[in-house]
Amino acid sequence: MFDDFQLNDDKPYYLQVKDYLKEIILKGMIQADTRLPSTRELSKMLKVSRNTIIEAYNYLEDEGFIYQKKAKGYFVSKIQNTQKTVFNIEWREKLTKLATLADKIDITKSEPKWEKGMISFKSISPDPNLFDVDELKRAFLNRISLEEGKILNYGYARGYKPLIDEIKKYLKLKGINLKGKDVIITNGYTEALNLVLGAVCNDKDEILCENPTHNTAINAMRLKGLNLIPVDIEEWGLNLEILEDRIKNNNPKLLYLTPSYHNPTGVVFSPENRLKILEIAKKYKLPILEDGFNEELRYYSSHILPLAALDDGNSIIYISSFSKVLFPGLRIGWILADEVLIDYIESLKRSLNIHTSFLDQAILFEYLNGGNLEKYINKVKRIYRDKFEWALECVKKYIPHKRILGEGGLHLFLELNSASARDVLKECLKQGVIFTPGEVFYIDDKGENTLRLGISRVTNEEIERGFKIIGDVVKKLEGLK
Amino acid sequence: MFDDFQLNDDKPYYLQVKDYLKEIILKGMIQADTRLPSTRELSKMLKVSRNTIIEAYNYLEDEGFIYQKKAKGYFVSKIQNTQKTVFNIEWREKLTKLATLADKIDITKSEPKWEKGMISFKSISPDPNLFDVDELKRAFLNRISLEEGKILNYGYARGYKPLIDEIKKYLKLKGINLKGKDVIITNGYTEALNLVLGAVCNDKDEILCENPTHNTAINAMRLKGLNLIPVDIEEWGLNLEILEDRIKNNNPKLLYLTPSYHNPTGVVFSPENRLKILEIAKKYKLPILEDGFNEELRYYSSHILPLAALDDGNSIIYISSFSKVLFPGLRIGWILADEVLIDYIESLKRSLNIHTSFLDQAILFEYLNGGNLEKYINKVKRIYRDKFEWALECVKKYIPHKRILGEGGLHLFLELNSASARDVLKECLKQGVIFTPGEVFYIDDKGENTLRLGISRVTNEEIERGFKIIGDVVKKLEGLK
Repeated sequence: MFDDFQLNDDKPYYLQVKDYLKEIILKGMIQADTRLPSTRELSKMLKVSRNTIIEAYNYLEDEGFIYQKKAKGYFVSKIQNTQKTVFNIEWREKLTKLATLADKIDITKSEPKWEKGMISFKSISPDPNLFDVDELKRAFLNRISLEEGKILNYGYARGYKPLIDEIKKYLKLKGINLKGKDVIITNGYTEALNLVLGAVCNDKDEILCENPTHNTAINAMRLKGLNLIPVDIEEWGLNLEILEDRIKNNNPKLLYLTPSYHNPTGVVFSPENRLKILEIAKKYKLPILEDGFNEELRYYSSHILPLAALDDGNSIIYISSFSKVLFPGLRIGWILADEVLIDYIESLKRSLNIHTSFLDQAILFEYLNGGNLEKYINKVKRIYRDKFEWALECVKKYIPHKRILGEGGLHLFLELNSASARDVLKECLKQGVIFTPGEVFYIDDKGENTLRLGISRVTNEEIERGFKIIGDVVKKLEGLK
Repeated sequence: MFDDFQLNDDKPYYLQVKDYLKEIILKGMIQADTRLPSTRELSKMLKVSRNTIIEAYNYLEDEGFIYQKKAKGYFVSKIQNTQKTVFNIEWREKLTKLATLADKIDITKSEPKWEKGMISFKSISPDPNLFDVDELKRAFLNRISLEEGKILNYGYARGYKPLIDEIKKYLKLKGINLKGKDVIITNGYTEALNLVLGAVCNDKDEILCENPTHNTAINAMRLKGLNLIPVDIEEWGLNLEILEDRIKNNNPKLLYLTPSYHNPTGVVFSPENRLKILEIAKKYKLPILEDGFNEELRYYSSHILPLAALDDGNSIIYISSFSKVLFPGLRIGWILADEVLIDYIESLKRSLNIHTSFLDQAILFEYLNGGNLEKYINKVKRIYRDKFEWALECVKKYIPHKRILGEGGLHLFLELNSASARDVLKECLKQGVIFTPGEVFYIDDKGENTLRLGISRVTNEEIERGFKIIGDVVKKLEGLK
């Protein structure tokens, strides 16, 4: 015994000795009430100082693994570790439909994964090399000095008050009238969406969605048991005729829209289109769930008001996060909506996870309050726009296509002439290039010839090389080569 | 115009000027295509440097609020802010049953709230003054230096790998056999519970619960539409006769248990009771959901193995967090379960909020890896135990009672002789003392004469003063005074 002990540099030595002895005791290798070696003896055996052993024994006693007898030394406590049962369950048979469906529609599991050496156009997350890590450090240190332990304890379901106020200011500067509205902080955009759906959509309810739309949104809606009704996206925004037709022929609870740098198409709804959507929604009393996705990444033209800024009533629920530009790893999003609705959503949020990390909220508040977001966006917009323009050039040069959609953002959406994007992906994968086939963004079975090319995490050189490979595969499949 | 501008010290001046002008433009106070004052003119009017104005104009141009004409200056862009609709919804009529129920059973809303000057025995959250803020700072700085921007970008639904490994080591040292099992990181214990329920419980399924039990658990189960079947808690653990009887007469999906420092009673299930529970569960093929709540706060006796360590099969789902001892504001918990089940839960988690904050996970990993948790628990256990003993003394001295339950933790659970805890609370509230009436922890209509007294956030002096007030009210209501 004691001859397989090995020290490493991870933890203090006394904790390593403690854990080592704990394992021996838990395995039942020393019987209860057996006397342990004296601290002097064990110190020699394990080749650590006597103080290390004394401290380890103290901890073990404190954790109830050993006990002391006056003048007789330390003994092993009675740990009931011998009479184990073996009881197995076939969990696959116990799963809910929800869990089975979640697994089935999880594209992270089913789509090809990035491996070393590949060029991946799957990601539309920001380039982490552009983050202001120093400013974030400063924000953390400032906030923790001010708040100390308080910020590490339980907080409120509604969120960290200074951050809520900061986000309200930010929304006001988008032109949104905040009267009668309130904000709740969520675990990113995805939780915001789930909370809204939980508050206003029942199983089997109908919801109108742009088609195609964000795959995360599609999955969240499907998992809520909703009936998704597609409305086509055009180059200028939502197809209004189809919208009105779908409203008349169905009984939708909500209209879900991503009017700026729409995911996956990159389309920006025109100001006129936005106004008309609002008029139609008002006419049919259909509330709107607006997704503020990527509004910050406007590269060209004048500022365009979000739908939430074009209506002075309470009918628009606006959800967003900074995650497409800033620190998505922090998982902070929000819901702006009628204050009555927010009050109910607060209880839902509390029941699900009490609240969003107060440390993260405090850091983000401090970062925003220092004006860092503006500086950061100002910087990255130029970089992303240059990359976007380069990618556009490369697509035009290398990939035969019917249509390129979108005016910006961190991705391009391509419609091919005839090749199936799935077939293209299959061939590209062999050559180490992956992307997201457009069909995963469609509610119906459209989109076979479309693909989304995320460009934020690849270099210009990789864009050219990768697009060339995609283009060659397309040409081959379409008989052009 | 421009005469109501006021500077503050929050943000850089140019951002303040930018935001001020943005608001004017958004309000439509300057018409589109109107020329703005020159940078020199505006600098005089707003009493800031010309450079500040130049920078503000640059940002405004970049954000699409103004445009530049060569040699003519800056002009206001066309922001479509005039044709607003007013479209209102009566949200109360749109709410789901889920949202209405969440609001109705939300005790944070219905129970008396702490106000300045009150003594509150409601909280069982840790004392933030005991947190090692310096160690946490160090953990943050170490991790961010190592990971840089990476840790701020999207991560994985399963969690931050080093933290998962750290938690596995930690669970192994509780004696748990990890073979065929896996861990997923969640937004605290509450999300862990919700995920497990979502994966294995359908609407209207039956679930066996200790009675009383954690109110958060009761609410989560009710909101999932489950039928809660109570099993009584005794001083030594779960009532086994009732357990077996309930299993026979119902068709439960799960048995939910908190065997250590049970919330609210503080009871620690005896080693014998634990083994018998496992035998019964195995006999009837009933999987167990074990809540590791407060296991770390064992004050007396030998180490007791969690249920998950007493079975070598895959039938126990173990959920926990450090939140009752450490940094609950970070919202990090976990599920340990059969790897097949964890794989499905991963997809559910991804659909709900992508993943838990990677920054928080990285900080917690670094903190744990340095051996800080052991040091911290070692320190606070003595403090909390002293407080617990003091509280016990005060209860015995001041509050007439039938029974005091519990062997430790951060709270006491009291059964009064005849007074209703609700009536006691009503009177105490007038005198500035609040606590949680036990009935909120009961699944059936029991517990009228019980109350939970949380002691972690009050001083010894407040405990004595507060308990005296409660005792006097009890005596008065029971006709003893």
